[in-house]
Amino acid sequence: MMTGINNCGILGGDRRQIALAEQLAAAGFQGYICGFDGVTFTGNVHKTTLGEMIRLCNIIILPLPVTDDGKHLKMDFSEKKIVLNDEFAEKMRGKRVIGGMMDRLYCTSSVWKQIQTDDYSVREEFAVRNAVPTAEGAIEIAMREYSGTVSGSRCLVAGFGRVGKVLSRMLHGLGAEVTVSARKPADIAWIKSCGYHSVQTENIGGGEYDIIFNTIPALIFDRPVLSSLSGCSLLIDLASAPGGVDYSAAEDTGIRALLAPSLPGRVAPKTAGAIILDTVCHIMEE
Amino acid sequence: MMTGINNCGILGGDRRQIALAEQLAAAGFQGYICGFDGVTFTGNVHKTTLGEMIRLCNIIILPLPVTDDGKHLKMDFSEKKIVLNDEFAEKMRGKRVIGGMMDRLYCTSSVWKQIQTDDYSVREEFAVRNAVPTAEGAIEIAMREYSGTVSGSRCLVAGFGRVGKVLSRMLHGLGAEVTVSARKPADIAWIKSCGYHSVQTENIGGGEYDIIFNTIPALIFDRPVLSSLSGCSLLIDLASAPGGVDYSAAEDTGIRALLAPSLPGRVAPKTAGAIILDTVCHIMEE
Amino acid sequence: MMTGINNCGILGGDRRQIALAEQLAAAGFQGYICGFDGVTFTGNVHKTTLGEMIRLCNIIILPLPVTDDGKHLKMDFSEKKIVLNDEFAEKMRGKRVIGGMMDRLYCTSSVWKQIQTDDYSVREEFAVRNAVPTAEGAIEIAMREYSGTVSGSRCLVAGFGRVGKVLSRMLHGLGAEVTVSARKPADIAWIKSCGYHSVQTENIGGGEYDIIFNTIPALIFDRPVLSSLSGCSLLIDLASAPGGVDYSAAEDTGIRALLAPSLPGRVAPKTAGAIILDTVCHIMEE
Amino acid sequence: MMTGINNCGILGGDRRQIALAEQLAAAGFQGYICGFDGVTFTGNVHKTTLGEMIRLCNIIILPLPVTDDGKHLKMDFSEKKIVLNDEFAEKMRGKRVIGGMMDRLYCTSSVWKQIQTDDYSVREEFAVRNAVPTAEGAIEIAMREYSGTVSGSRCLVAGFGRVGKVLSRMLHGLGAEVTVSARKPADIAWIKSCGYHSVQTENIGGGEYDIIFNTIPALIFDRPVLSSLSGCSLLIDLASAPGGVDYSAAEDTGIRALLAPSLPGRVAPKTAGAIILDTVCHIMEE
Repeated sequence: MMTGINNCGILGGDRRQIALAEQLAAAGFQGYICGFDGVTFTGNVHKTTLGEMIRLCNIIILPLPVTDDGKHLKMDFSEKKIVLNDEFAEKMRGKRVIGGMMDRLYCTSSVWKQIQTDDYSVREEFAVRNAVPTAEGAIEIAMREYSGTVSGSRCLVAGFGRVGKVLSRMLHGLGAEVTVSARKPADIAWIKSCGYHSVQTENIGGGEYDIIFNTIPALIFDRPVLSSLSGCSLLIDLASAPGGVDYSAAEDTGIRALLAPSLPGRVAPKTAGAIILDTVCHIMEE
Repeated sequence: MMTGINNCGILGGDRRQIALAEQLAAAGFQGYICGFDGVTFTGNVHKTTLGEMIRLCNIIILPLPVTDDGKHLKMDFSEKKIVLNDEFAEKMRGKRVIGGMMDRLYCTSSVWKQIQTDDYSVREEFAVRNAVPTAEGAIEIAMREYSGTVSGSRCLVAGFGRVGKVLSRMLHGLGAEVTVSARKPADIAWIKSCGYHSVQTENIGGGEYDIIFNTIPALIFDRPVLSSLSGCSLLIDLASAPGGVDYSAAEDTGIRALLAPSLPGRVAPKTAGAIILDTVCHIMEE
Repeated sequence: MMTGINNCGILGGDRRQIALAEQLAAAGFQGYICGFDGVTFTGNVHKTTLGEMIRLCNIIILPLPVTDDGKHLKMDFSEKKIVLNDEFAEKMRGKRVIGGMMDRLYCTSSVWKQIQTDDYSVREEFAVRNAVPTAEGAIEIAMREYSGTVSGSRCLVAGFGRVGKVLSRMLHGLGAEVTVSARKPADIAWIKSCGYHSVQTENIGGGEYDIIFNTIPALIFDRPVLSSLSGCSLLIDLASAPGGVDYSAAEDTGIRALLAPSLPGRVAPKTAGAIILDTVCHIMEE
Repeated sequence: MMTGINNCGILGGDRRQIALAEQLAAAGFQGYICGFDGVTFTGNVHKTTLGEMIRLCNIIILPLPVTDDGKHLKMDFSEKKIVLNDEFAEKMRGKRVIGGMMDRLYCTSSVWKQIQTDDYSVREEFAVRNAVPTAEGAIEIAMREYSGTVSGSRCLVAGFGRVGKVLSRMLHGLGAEVTVSARKPADIAWIKSCGYHSVQTENIGGGEYDIIFNTIPALIFDRPVLSSLSGCSLLIDLASAPGGVDYSAAEDTGIRALLAPSLPGRVAPKTAGAIILDTVCHIMEE
């Protein structure tokens, strides 16, 4: 793992970076971290200032997303703020900088064009692996909010992308009666081959479901569709903002609709940190 | 379902009885209920006083357990109290009374010997079906409390009884790496045939697990065993009180141990209510 | 494994005993075998005469069943015959003799009362483990004989005993739509909890199935039931002789009914041999 | 299904076309068929001469592949031969002609450029659905040829394309210990998320497997790799000809290697016929 990495600095982030730092240290590497003021680390994790990190490390790992507001580095565990500008970028010259949603960083300074950067969040294997904590987070919500058991319930998974694939397999494994929606004949064929019921996404309306999981980033669950699904009591929306549900119509029709974004970091920071670490390793090895 | 039942009274209980009453009504029967002061019911559920229920109903369904303290009827949703004594039993003369853990009721009056009673909680199919909400409740706790994903984690299920069987299948279906402990060679053979790892219960110590679920009502997880399981961060104890864990030793060894009793009624009252209803129906049909 | 066994003799049998001998040898033990004239063994398996085996071995493993005709030892791979009588039993004095369906042996001589014998075929774990090759053999037949795929087909498993449990899980895992029949409410509850459809055994008639697997040793599939299942094209009868099907009626109604007994030894002798070996080991350890 | 089709002719083929014709008839359509001399059909299937079919039908369904030798129509059930040339193509003028591997047909006459043709065999959903009978056929071979049970055996699936995906899920469902090989990090992530072991395809050598399934159409199993897999006794090659195995080296190393092409039509003609029919319907509806 990460052969030849002597000095790796983790700069900013949330609980995923805490897990990442501890896993890096557990693997036998020196881990430097900055931006986690009140956090106590175990093992070979060393807290540094930004200056020390620049001096000691040739690889810098940034959070996902690298910034929430477009102006400051994401640092959930620090009172201080690091401004993203030319000055910050200049400090990174000569280093390898790897972060998530890096487009937001590139907007903050033209200096980044001259620095070797990579984005772990755009990698296919990163997205695939994050589908697991996303699906599991959705199931946890369903178990908590639904008044029956997920096992034996009629679940609709709208969309058969990465999250849809993992989520439908887990629900099936729990014993739910799973229907999955898709548009393409090949996806419908895959859905059937897995032993799930299938439905064309445009024909979702009128179905009988106890719990609905939406993974499609488009307004599939509009007022007419929601009105036709009155037997359903819970709709969990996993699509990235603004989601795929008319929340006002959901309220009117008596369906509890919950927007559940960013599940991996919230429900399984340890796993989410490991996914970042593994993806960074793949990037380094290439 | 329940052919010939004209008048069924639900007396006392918790959220399971609310679900039970609504399902009975949804099935087309008149449902009478007493002991749910602030609760609003839908459909054909009629709130009554105890006196009215005695007058109207020939079948009375009591809660599980019929009493918590041995002296009063379990009534979680009422300020009032109904004392269990000869007077109460006399009121039930001529009726068919069906409840859970009825031994506790029989202790309160010798009159019960002269009344037709049944206990749904001792039925095998009742226990089997309740294993599903119990297992699902345990998984919900694991998902919430464990910092990684259950999928991919190393889980030990101690005991291969009803809950152990359902729980191990669900964990396997979620993608966990499942080890199950048992004592009998035939159970070990069953465990292997399901594709799980097996371990003799007496050899649980020293194993490498992320999450442990105990279903055995005996002190399996004592100080020596807990000390040998230091990689484990979470232990969920599903055994009935007093459980199967030395909680003081768990704290000392850094393992979070959680006692999780009575899961069906808490996590899935709708399902738990349906299970009571179906079992009562089986009793009536025999 | 089998600590303290210096000299173990395998006397008679079929392909399972060949596998058993080679596995015993592969585990580092001296294996002596008699009754396999034309068979070439690998490793530490030594062919002996009966006389040599008596002289060298203190443990003798007999086949399953120990005899087919009640008079001679089962020896599928030998031209010679060993008669089961007082003389044979006398030779076994002082030895530990372990075989399958030993009741048939005890009938051949009263001397057996004075010899330490065990029957591996009556052990619960033996029956559980043999359910796997039995179920897999049944699926192989279904795949070969059914003109569609088992995946996606509507399968009925009649009976929820050991073979029924394993078979229904495998069919479900292959993607079949599985219905299981049982009589007891608790079994029906188990079936539902696994995500299968359930049916009361007495109500099997009239169902729509592509393939039926019978595991019930009673005449469930009589003429009236078979006549009501005309959509079914294949019925595989796993019940021990005489099976559970009216074969004449099956022919009349156009259902191909196949009696498939003794599957483990025929389809998976290696696994079946390992199951005998493991069970013998359990017996020795007790 | 197939709205507006009055007259559909099935010309040539194998057992799949027999199933296709009977399913078309069972769905209520007039089915005309030519090229099945000795076959008796049920229901609304009408045998015709080629001339009659030309006169009666506006849609013609050709076999998969449309020709084996490049010169004659594939007609496994007829003594007669239909030559593929300009004359044959001229007869199809004005009709809609749908077949499999149609490139081979287009080579036989330039007239085809002026005819509306479609190829069902190049459709994604066709390939997806055929993965099911292919995988099941492979499992049937494994069950028949392997001396143990597939359940509990260590299986390697080389390649995570369509067949690899379905095959690994079925093997897992049967209880095998499944390892899947792939090259891309995203595929490795998918494999792990399904609960299988993963291995880089280039690192297959040296692994410990009982049964190997190859789905990769490249020489993965060459002499060095095969020599390093001596524990393996059975290798089933599902890659299209010439397959992915050095068969001479396999023989030298004691591994039974079986080439198993064209499984859908051979093991599950009924399912394979239904897949052709459904795909033709999709083509007609577009």
